[in-house]
Amino acid sequence: MNETVIKKMQEILGEAWVVTDLEKVKSYCDDQTEKAMKPEICTDCVVVKPSKTEEISKIMKYANENKLTVIARGGGTSLSGAAIAIMPGIIISMERMNNIIEVDETSMTVECEAGVTLLQLVELFNKHDTLYFPIHPGDEGAQVGGLVVMNAGGVRAVRYGVMRDQIKEMEMVLASGEVVRLGKNLIKNNAGLDLKNLIVGSEGILGIVTKATLSIKPKDKHIGSLIVSFENESDAVKAVTEIFKTGIKPMAIEYMEKKAILKAAKDIGMTWPSSEGAVDLYFIVSERKEDDLYEMYEIIVGICEENNALNSFVAESSKDQRTLLDIRSHVYPSMHDEVVDAIDAAIPMKNLSKYMDSITKISEKYNVHISTIGHIGDGNLHNSILTEGAVKPDNYDEIADEIFALVMECGGSITGEHGIGKIRNKKMNLQFSETELRLMKEIKKIFDPNNILNPGTAL
Amino acid sequence: MNETVIKKMQEILGEAWVVTDLEKVKSYCDDQTEKAMKPEICTDCVVVKPSKTEEISKIMKYANENKLTVIARGGGTSLSGAAIAIMPGIIISMERMNNIIEVDETSMTVECEAGVTLLQLVELFNKHDTLYFPIHPGDEGAQVGGLVVMNAGGVRAVRYGVMRDQIKEMEMVLASGEVVRLGKNLIKNNAGLDLKNLIVGSEGILGIVTKATLSIKPKDKHIGSLIVSFENESDAVKAVTEIFKTGIKPMAIEYMEKKAILKAAKDIGMTWPSSEGAVDLYFIVSERKEDDLYEMYEIIVGICEENNALNSFVAESSKDQRTLLDIRSHVYPSMHDEVVDAIDAAIPMKNLSKYMDSITKISEKYNVHISTIGHIGDGNLHNSILTEGAVKPDNYDEIADEIFALVMECGGSITGEHGIGKIRNKKMNLQFSETELRLMKEIKKIFDPNNILNPGTAL
Ligand SMILES: Cc1cc2nc3c(=O)[nH]c(=O)nc-3n(C[C@H](O)[C@H](O)[C@H](O)COP(=O)(O)OP(=O)(O)OC[C@H]3O[C@@H](n4cnc5c(N)ncnc54)[C@H](O)[C@@H]3O)c2cc1C
Ligand SMILES: Cc1cc2nc3c(=O)[nH]c(=O)nc-3n(C[C@H](O)[C@H](O)[C@H](O)COP(=O)(O)OP(=O)(O)OC[C@H]3O[C@@H](n4cnc5c(N)ncnc54)[C@H](O)[C@@H]3O)c2cc1C
Repeated sequence: MNETVIKKMQEILGEAWVVTDLEKVKSYCDDQTEKAMKPEICTDCVVVKPSKTEEISKIMKYANENKLTVIARGGGTSLSGAAIAIMPGIIISMERMNNIIEVDETSMTVECEAGVTLLQLVELFNKHDTLYFPIHPGDEGAQVGGLVVMNAGGVRAVRYGVMRDQIKEMEMVLASGEVVRLGKNLIKNNAGLDLKNLIVGSEGILGIVTKATLSIKPKDKHIGSLIVSFENESDAVKAVTEIFKTGIKPMAIEYMEKKAILKAAKDIGMTWPSSEGAVDLYFIVSERKEDDLYEMYEIIVGICEENNALNSFVAESSKDQRTLLDIRSHVYPSMHDEVVDAIDAAIPMKNLSKYMDSITKISEKYNVHISTIGHIGDGNLHNSILTEGAVKPDNYDEIADEIFALVMECGGSITGEHGIGKIRNKKMNLQFSETELRLMKEIKKIFDPNNILNPGTAL
Repeated sequence: MNETVIKKMQEILGEAWVVTDLEKVKSYCDDQTEKAMKPEICTDCVVVKPSKTEEISKIMKYANENKLTVIARGGGTSLSGAAIAIMPGIIISMERMNNIIEVDETSMTVECEAGVTLLQLVELFNKHDTLYFPIHPGDEGAQVGGLVVMNAGGVRAVRYGVMRDQIKEMEMVLASGEVVRLGKNLIKNNAGLDLKNLIVGSEGILGIVTKATLSIKPKDKHIGSLIVSFENESDAVKAVTEIFKTGIKPMAIEYMEKKAILKAAKDIGMTWPSSEGAVDLYFIVSERKEDDLYEMYEIIVGICEENNALNSFVAESSKDQRTLLDIRSHVYPSMHDEVVDAIDAAIPMKNLSKYMDSITKISEKYNVHISTIGHIGDGNLHNSILTEGAVKPDNYDEIADEIFALVMECGGSITGEHGIGKIRNKKMNLQFSETELRLMKEIKKIFDPNNILNPGTAL
């Protein structure tokens, strides 16, 4: 990285907060994307660690005037290559901007600097009697800024939606260095065009988020977990769609290939309660009253039985529920060494059965193992293409093309929660017309005319 | 209106669907905005009534090539002058595009053409056993397209949010005539920049919405209404903020100046249950189970009593509840002849008390009657400035300036639900910085480079 740039960064931040040591820099250039999908990493970068908005504003002004590439970096937990550096540039690590500014119990919101981690929020609200932050993607190292611009989801979306549904207001630095404040801490606000929602899910290409106010929810007193096993996936999927028709909303409904969940349990020396069948549904039910919890179990188990469920198992003690969650959380890590591509499609409820049946057919046709473990409750199934050593099979492109064509045929989205990043941009034209893509590109140009913010991402 | 334009419209639509008769045209040039606030109306317009997207596409292509002004018109129920014609142009009335396309009970959505009225949706779901459309602004003549681009709110926002929270996907014709499809019928969708939310609340300046898919909700079996009276507004406001801290969510909480509600009741020959005090809160409580309904009453009345409530009254029969709702709905009509400006600010919960206290002070300072009737449950209080015959007082500008300065000081929005339209554009710079306004204007330019869509609105 150019000496003049480094000098300028030191001038803005002080020497201590400008990292040039190659080994240290390297760890900021990569993220958690599957190896087989990753673009080539460029480590010719400087890492800077601002502590306030004004510093970021100065950095951006300088970078923009000199057309230098900038990547904002949160926890580096992206699974779509969004945080990977692919050309020389300045990496702005948000780690020092980690203050929780205010919990407002009347509006039920928490205001944070963008570098606050999900872990910080979890720990804060573990200590709180009645409130918590509902969004929980799988890696607690993710930061508020990353969660906002990736519009993170996770398992609880069935009841509470995704990050987009929680974001009240934010502060952001534009490519030019100008600071804007978008949104208000309100339920109703109809002034002007909605710039806030444009930033949510923008993957860091429209500006650097420096603060966000997020909604928090009342804690339910009664929480239980329910595992139901099925002989085959069609029955499981059918049960879920039937449950939705009743209008009830469990906190989460996860779908799990039996083989994968048993392997995960074994890997961490724990026992999964059911060994029958090929597929499990994992319901998390959460209610204000105990009676309602039992009523929910009854409705859910009833519908599952009508759809040929083999057995069901309730976990009520927090220890037993913790065990289930630990095993569930370990599924992805335990298959990680074999994952070529963790397809992240989201499918409209009414086409879920068709989608899953066709995935099975594709798997058989190409004789490839596609392991499905995902958030069936919100239509976001992760179908992972697995091979030994995660080596891309020769016919990977054909398999992927067929899967994505299926996603489009079902009215789905090529990415439900992990984003386009740097690994799905070439698929954008499957989902969007030329006109739609042109609108997006022109919006990018308004926010970042010199294309300095995380180029090669999202569009 | 120019003969060539009329000919062209007849060519596209057939003569029957092109209206040039001045009396008929006039009724399409106006909306429901307060007289004292209205801009001057221009009736040199032609009204066209397309029946499908392709026709709108042709109209737009022609208008764009010839730089002709176009206003999409829904039910004409706007309260911010958004639907008023202020220069010669083509008014596209959406009234014939009124088909309800599909109710999807698995995804819990309804797909409509943009000209479907709120009344059609209400009637459709009145006949449905378990589902309904939760958004209900006060005039059932509003159309889906108008509801979408105005991001309509109404009383039930406390539980279900506003239109923005219900919109899954939409079809839209750009100024150029190109047709785009934005959003997906999904809970999770992270592909590309979020164009859909940019259209929601855009007040018809970015394109013509032709279809929308909206979420619908399960009907609760048990619904009750609760009226609680207070000696003064501070106690009432305090009670509401205390209720929110418990985490419970009634369907609606309305705030009503006693004088106004009694007048409304008298005007339609009905009786309001309470005559004590200066302010009433009107709670609509809706639960799956009867027990929960009683529990809610108990919590709400308990907190109100701690805040000096004078009395409370429960309505449970549908007849009694209907009476309350009819009186509530009549408040605005019954004061309409005196309303100079129905301020539509939204205020963060934690500043509601401060806001209401200051409104009282402003009213005293200027010796003007400001009547507050509004959606306190979501912070969107309508403070109407009243005078005899709705004549603008000489010091109107001073009063308005002071109110809007207060709204900003409280972190609020100059419009919670009625929008900027053509009556609040000059106030935009109170809420937005030059940079923020520039971003909005540049986005407008991308969608409508010739500024033909409803100029003078929203920005
Ligand atoms: C084990 C595991 C499980 C996961 N589970 C889920 C899940 O269930 N649901 C889900 O949605 N995701 C999941 N993820 C993905 C990931 O956690 C989310 O995408 C997360 O939101 C990324 O946040 P981050 O802070 O790590 O961002 P990073 O990875 O650091 O960056 C991601 C993108 O955001 C940008 N960015 C970061 N901070 C800012 C900022 N302040 N301003 C502007 N741009 C910024 C970066 O430039 C980059 O483009 C998982 C990841 C892992 C490793
Ligand atoms: C008695 C009364 C009570 C009301 N109560 C509420 C309330 O509680 N909450 C609330 O939020 N509002 C309320 N309103 C305001 C109004 O009902 C809403 O703003 C409504 O959404 C307007 O819909 P419309 O179809 O009548 O639109 P119109 O008035 O016809 O048009 C409004 C704007 O939308 C644009 N537009 C209309 N259709 C389309 C389309 N298909 N594509 C693109 N642009 C389009 C127009 O160009 C215009 O800019 C009330 C109005 C009245 C008269």
